[in-house]
Amino acid sequence: MMEKYILKIDCKDQKGLIYRISDTIFKFGLNIAKNHEFVDHEVNKFFYRAEIDCEKSIDETAFCGTLSAMLGSEANIVLKKSSKKDIVILATKETHCLGDMLIKHSSGELNANILAVIANHDDLRELVEKFGIKFYCVESNGTKREDHEQDILNLLSKFSFDYMVLAKYMRILSPNFVKAYENKIINIHHSFLPAFIGANPYKQAYERGVKIIGATSHFVNNDLDEGPIITQDVARVNHEMSWQDMQKVGRNIERNVLAAALDLVFDDRIFVYNNKTVIF
Amino acid sequence: MMEKYILKIDCKDQKGLIYRISDTIFKFGLNIAKNHEFVDHEVNKFFYRAEIDCEKSIDETAFCGTLSAMLGSEANIVLKKSSKKDIVILATKETHCLGDMLIKHSSGELNANILAVIANHDDLRELVEKFGIKFYCVESNGTKREDHEQDILNLLSKFSFDYMVLAKYMRILSPNFVKAYENKIINIHHSFLPAFIGANPYKQAYERGVKIIGATSHFVNNDLDEGPIITQDVARVNHEMSWQDMQKVGRNIERNVLAAALDLVFDDRIFVYNNKTVIF
Amino acid sequence: MMEKYILKIDCKDQKGLIYRISDTIFKFGLNIAKNHEFVDHEVNKFFYRAEIDCEKSIDETAFCGTLSAMLGSEANIVLKKSSKKDIVILATKETHCLGDMLIKHSSGELNANILAVIANHDDLRELVEKFGIKFYCVESNGTKREDHEQDILNLLSKFSFDYMVLAKYMRILSPNFVKAYENKIINIHHSFLPAFIGANPYKQAYERGVKIIGATSHFVNNDLDEGPIITQDVARVNHEMSWQDMQKVGRNIERNVLAAALDLVFDDRIFVYNNKTVIF
Amino acid sequence: MMEKYILKIDCKDQKGLIYRISDTIFKFGLNIAKNHEFVDHEVNKFFYRAEIDCEKSIDETAFCGTLSAMLGSEANIVLKKSSKKDIVILATKETHCLGDMLIKHSSGELNANILAVIANHDDLRELVEKFGIKFYCVESNGTKREDHEQDILNLLSKFSFDYMVLAKYMRILSPNFVKAYENKIINIHHSFLPAFIGANPYKQAYERGVKIIGATSHFVNNDLDEGPIITQDVARVNHEMSWQDMQKVGRNIERNVLAAALDLVFDDRIFVYNNKTVIF
Repeated sequence: MMEKYILKIDCKDQKGLIYRISDTIFKFGLNIAKNHEFVDHEVNKFFYRAEIDCEKSIDETAFCGTLSAMLGSEANIVLKKSSKKDIVILATKETHCLGDMLIKHSSGELNANILAVIANHDDLRELVEKFGIKFYCVESNGTKREDHEQDILNLLSKFSFDYMVLAKYMRILSPNFVKAYENKIINIHHSFLPAFIGANPYKQAYERGVKIIGATSHFVNNDLDEGPIITQDVARVNHEMSWQDMQKVGRNIERNVLAAALDLVFDDRIFVYNNKTVIF
Repeated sequence: MMEKYILKIDCKDQKGLIYRISDTIFKFGLNIAKNHEFVDHEVNKFFYRAEIDCEKSIDETAFCGTLSAMLGSEANIVLKKSSKKDIVILATKETHCLGDMLIKHSSGELNANILAVIANHDDLRELVEKFGIKFYCVESNGTKREDHEQDILNLLSKFSFDYMVLAKYMRILSPNFVKAYENKIINIHHSFLPAFIGANPYKQAYERGVKIIGATSHFVNNDLDEGPIITQDVARVNHEMSWQDMQKVGRNIERNVLAAALDLVFDDRIFVYNNKTVIF
Repeated sequence: MMEKYILKIDCKDQKGLIYRISDTIFKFGLNIAKNHEFVDHEVNKFFYRAEIDCEKSIDETAFCGTLSAMLGSEANIVLKKSSKKDIVILATKETHCLGDMLIKHSSGELNANILAVIANHDDLRELVEKFGIKFYCVESNGTKREDHEQDILNLLSKFSFDYMVLAKYMRILSPNFVKAYENKIINIHHSFLPAFIGANPYKQAYERGVKIIGATSHFVNNDLDEGPIITQDVARVNHEMSWQDMQKVGRNIERNVLAAALDLVFDDRIFVYNNKTVIF
Repeated sequence: MMEKYILKIDCKDQKGLIYRISDTIFKFGLNIAKNHEFVDHEVNKFFYRAEIDCEKSIDETAFCGTLSAMLGSEANIVLKKSSKKDIVILATKETHCLGDMLIKHSSGELNANILAVIANHDDLRELVEKFGIKFYCVESNGTKREDHEQDILNLLSKFSFDYMVLAKYMRILSPNFVKAYENKIINIHHSFLPAFIGANPYKQAYERGVKIIGATSHFVNNDLDEGPIITQDVARVNHEMSWQDMQKVGRNIERNVLAAALDLVFDDRIFVYNNKTVIF
């Protein structure tokens, strides 16, 4: 029975890093199925990711300890067995992104376990519960913003998850909320960032008369719509389309872009630094 | 021998416009090879374009007079024989857009006559003159901005042209300049507008960490990079690319996008209104 | 209360068609919200589609009769109220296309009523029934091909539907079957037709070493994978991808392409002739 | 002064390859600016490419000898200084691909020296000679196919070149010709291979009614249009377009695809095996 591990390393660039890493892997008798590296020469930073196949479990402490001795204590070394991620989804009312995740979850094509769906309205309950997944409505109407967010945080604290996916969650998260889950929140934004930040980007796009619209999936950080971009895609539009037509086309892009981003995140293919992503 | 005309009409929308137009065309014994119409219901405006084939020349005064009587005096009615446009090109130092135009001009694939290329440096002289086209250097170094622009205007006044193409002309045009040639100046901007307005968009794109870059061709109006968009295109980029790599990829997009926009403009396919374009 | 009609006309091309059609529409006091026409000069054929808004129902007999008198008895004239189509879905085991349709159906974004899902295996029952839609398994294992097809035909005869959607139905339909539902069967083929006709196109694409894969939605006619193409889309692939990786990427394209094709079909935007489509 | 080398290795896959390669690079005191590897597990083959920066020239014999001792004598090891390639272009009459190469050559953006352009008609002489490049017309009219090809071969034998670029050379090359320049001939084919092999693919595409057309750049081998694909691209088409319209759009794709392929080839980024390409 074959085990599959993912090894991710980032550190200051220096001569011989690949040599030292591959030396260690070789000495532990492990087999690299695939590996990628990248050096950002501008900031002198090295990134490495390998998929490792082995016949028995790796002694993680010994392996990472050896690597750390080779690379220096400042290197970030993460070794983990390849496995499904645990996620929580936040949503509002729209079904196109959530529905795609539910379908893929039910057919085993989503590399994640959905622990719960939390929404600020009750509209999605029926859809979510159809799939045997817990749905929580934390109603936002009639509640102060900070209280509502605290309610969400309280609920989230009951789950142990790897990532939180904002599948068209139409509320702005406060810096405090975001800081609590750094590089763990994935959003789908309904525009080709950095164009059309803010409310109703399809209307903005329509009014500006652009000929291409897009969507962007990104990690969420303090600044709204400003986090590290994971992936983007676009579609052509024309003068015959109202902003509602653009929104309809846009929903398909949003669904596709979020799906592509989640595949990358759940497969541990991404490094985040300097508000950017390195994706192997 | 077949003549080919282009008829373009725009006016306030009202019932029966198509009927009245096609009635007139029918009564003049003309044949519509292709026609398109569009109503912007938001602003209640009607746009119509037809390609008309006929065996002898149309009596333009009679035809347009009849149409005007049918549609009301506020309708804009333009009928012209399909023909090559006369253009002047402004450039600076880069060859990718200009070179593509020169090659297509020499093989007859550009639907325009290039009357002159004007640049603010002398670098492009050799390339342009190879093709037997007049090159004028109006040096910008050592000249005050307004004086330089006046020099360009003086030179332009010697030419009778339909359109001015900014094929990577890296100077900002003043509102006065632009007003003198309303909807006659076509620019290629090296970003996917409205993202990355301003200087060095590839560096901005690199720093933001976008995963797609683009280029935009637009008519130039008072506000820099804010004119009606004609067409746009994009290409994927990734973390391995420096901003110079992005610029290299971007140059190909710029060349493609400008070429596509010029095809549309030179074939009289575009209406401009409300800072947007209707393209048939 | 506004009614919305779709008018579709095709006939031999001749002078004055637009005039006669718009004359009729005008005389009946109707308002064209949007219209498109196209003449295929190679085969001398005229196509016309209009979206008509009106305040009360149109007297369809009078209107079509007048039009017919104007255009000649050979013109195909179809006027119908804009409304949701009734459809039956055939599937096998995969959920990506079917699931997308179910989600959109449940949120009202599919312009169709799903009357039933019929499959040759029982795997999809749970998913379909979750959504309160009838699921019929007509098991293909252990049944002769012609008997199985007859069983399907018998079942289909119980439904009155506008279109049959093959949402990854992995069986070949016989010419007899297809003839019974001419231009009513929509398929999604997992390649960029006409490349890779036949079994496992992703494996074929992998072995050929292509750098782009695609999917094609088309009407089904006698010849397998040879029917009139509705729409296509593509995605880039590279040497790192196994054919299973390509299949995974391909599933997303299939889902997108089928969804786009169904929007066009259900909105009555398509004419089929000469094994091609005209799409307005 | 920094030297830049490209190291390319391919061999049977085995444990520890990366370790042995990086060990050697490290011991020679060299710095890897960028490196990529890939294992095709299906055929058990390993591919590696590195860009190496160093302050003085590498002792190539010593370095490759050491590597060869580490990797076994069956490994293909190629180390070369990064430099412009020498190329010969074959063409017929069209200017879109050739013109793009001439413009980029003249501005220094083509990573190659054009030694000569050879054509089977004289039409392109003026364009080529404008750029100070040798043009040879080996007229094909009135000459037997094998004699014409022999004339071309005789002419080619006078040049020492790395690659031959078929920039819309509209003649079929015989297996003997191709064998003489294995993996050195780059073609641009005017379709999205493997669709529409053979004559006039735009006409074929038009007749099939496809909604997307494309172009393919590939190495040429014995079988016409069957060689290893380097890159491809596509554009959308519609029912309004004649095959000549498709050809016009197609020319832009051809030019773009050939340009992209040449960038990859001239930068030594490609491995060819099993009629496929690995591209780093």
